[in-house]
Amino acid sequence: MNNATELAELSANKCFGGWQKRYSHRSKVLNCEMHFSVFIPPAAEKVAKLPVLYWLSGLTCTDENFSTKAGAQRIAAELGIMLIMPDTSPRGEHVTDAADGAYDLGLGAGFYLNATQTPWQEHYQMYDYIVEELPALIQKEFKVKEKAAIAGHSMGGHGALTIALSNMKRYCSVSAFAPIVNPMECQWGQKAFTHYLGDNKAEWQAYDSCALMRQQGEFLHIPMLVDQGLDDNFYHTQKLSKPLEEVALDINYQAEFRYHPGYDHSYYFIASFIEDHLRFHAKYL
Amino acid sequence: MNNATELAELSANKCFGGWQKRYSHRSKVLNCEMHFSVFIPPAAEKVAKLPVLYWLSGLTCTDENFSTKAGAQRIAAELGIMLIMPDTSPRGEHVTDAADGAYDLGLGAGFYLNATQTPWQEHYQMYDYIVEELPALIQKEFKVKEKAAIAGHSMGGHGALTIALSNMKRYCSVSAFAPIVNPMECQWGQKAFTHYLGDNKAEWQAYDSCALMRQQGEFLHIPMLVDQGLDDNFYHTQKLSKPLEEVALDINYQAEFRYHPGYDHSYYFIASFIEDHLRFHAKYL
Repeated sequence: MNNATELAELSANKCFGGWQKRYSHRSKVLNCEMHFSVFIPPAAEKVAKLPVLYWLSGLTCTDENFSTKAGAQRIAAELGIMLIMPDTSPRGEHVTDAADGAYDLGLGAGFYLNATQTPWQEHYQMYDYIVEELPALIQKEFKVKEKAAIAGHSMGGHGALTIALSNMKRYCSVSAFAPIVNPMECQWGQKAFTHYLGDNKAEWQAYDSCALMRQQGEFLHIPMLVDQGLDDNFYHTQKLSKPLEEVALDINYQAEFRYHPGYDHSYYFIASFIEDHLRFHAKYL
Repeated sequence: MNNATELAELSANKCFGGWQKRYSHRSKVLNCEMHFSVFIPPAAEKVAKLPVLYWLSGLTCTDENFSTKAGAQRIAAELGIMLIMPDTSPRGEHVTDAADGAYDLGLGAGFYLNATQTPWQEHYQMYDYIVEELPALIQKEFKVKEKAAIAGHSMGGHGALTIALSNMKRYCSVSAFAPIVNPMECQWGQKAFTHYLGDNKAEWQAYDSCALMRQQGEFLHIPMLVDQGLDDNFYHTQKLSKPLEEVALDINYQAEFRYHPGYDHSYYFIASFIEDHLRFHAKYL
């Protein structure tokens, strides 16, 4: 039996008494080498199994934006939560990118779905990576609880919400900052879905939070917190937050939606409220 | 009389109830266009004059590293402290850089001194910029208290300590992370001082914290806090922290030096202890 780790440690920085680390590994479902970041809280030395929060980042991000900019480690250290920060798409020179190098398709823009269209389907299987392959790897390599929390920003908020709403028994809670909640009806979503999933809009619904909440949320329920800045340039045009709150009100799904005057789409917004999100998840983890 | 602002606002992000802003302005002493970042705490709307902390960054940094990575705004918002984050050197295509593009000389490596040697002296007057020109501009443009706190990291820790030790009546307190305290005796300092100041080592003493503390600290005193990671790659080779503690002990200068096992030279180290520094300065501001 081979107990060798599948992870290569790229860096390790002590941080708030715990460890901020970065790993690379070979992803089978993405068919490429991937990086991800981890924060291991000091409680790792004391508890049998750590609670885990997966953070999904937005367009153009890597695994490092949240780890360097959000200031989440302070609270994760206090609460004893392990943070897992995956990349936002498959990576590598052999991985298809947008022909015109656009920021909203291809590298850095995986949209947390399983692509079905050529040439994208060879690598763009981010849904399976986030839901299956990466958690299995984390379970194997670290002592962690099985049920995790999931959160994200913008495209990553879309990822967190769609994944939680499709797997309500596997996640304990979900939260999002400025999530794209109705990608079927906005430019970012329509562009990505057309390329990755093709023209059959029935298949798009599996990756649309509004559609998923209508389908799933009447039967099951997962605690949900959404923060939205009211000075966010993308708020109206990219269907952030509000359309999902309307569905929630319509079907009586209990979720908290908060709207913050003056705040924009940046990490300064995330940093300002990440503590609330971690404390929210800690109640359910 | 012309009351027009000398500042151009480049960006504004709401953050912890206050505003993270970035400005450009024309610096006379540096003879170039400069950027700096500011955090304006929510207390700005309530108090007559805000207390101010100047943060000086290290080699290769701009005004944005600390603002995006340190997580200081949360505590500055709570304590009502304004943060001023200058750049680390003069900037622009017409400004002399290291001939070989080295990271430790020229752009991004101003060392907070007034250069006397050709061709550096035309722009590299960072001491006058930080001590005179920028505070005068801040006083003119914002409602702030006159006496400020000053802090920094690595080369910026060197800047904060040398500036405070040379101007003990103008600053209320000083703190540093992994500061270069004896640049006359390490590779970074010797290289920079030779280029900027020439070969006369008597003139180097004005920018060496150990020399300055021996000269000034016997007569005056300014509250001082220094944090040092014990797994910092540069700790021994670049004369960080410890030589200054030895001078302090020798002349009975009251200062707190803290050494942290496992921590390195990165912003993860700064983020872990910046709260202590802001609370330290708040006692004197």
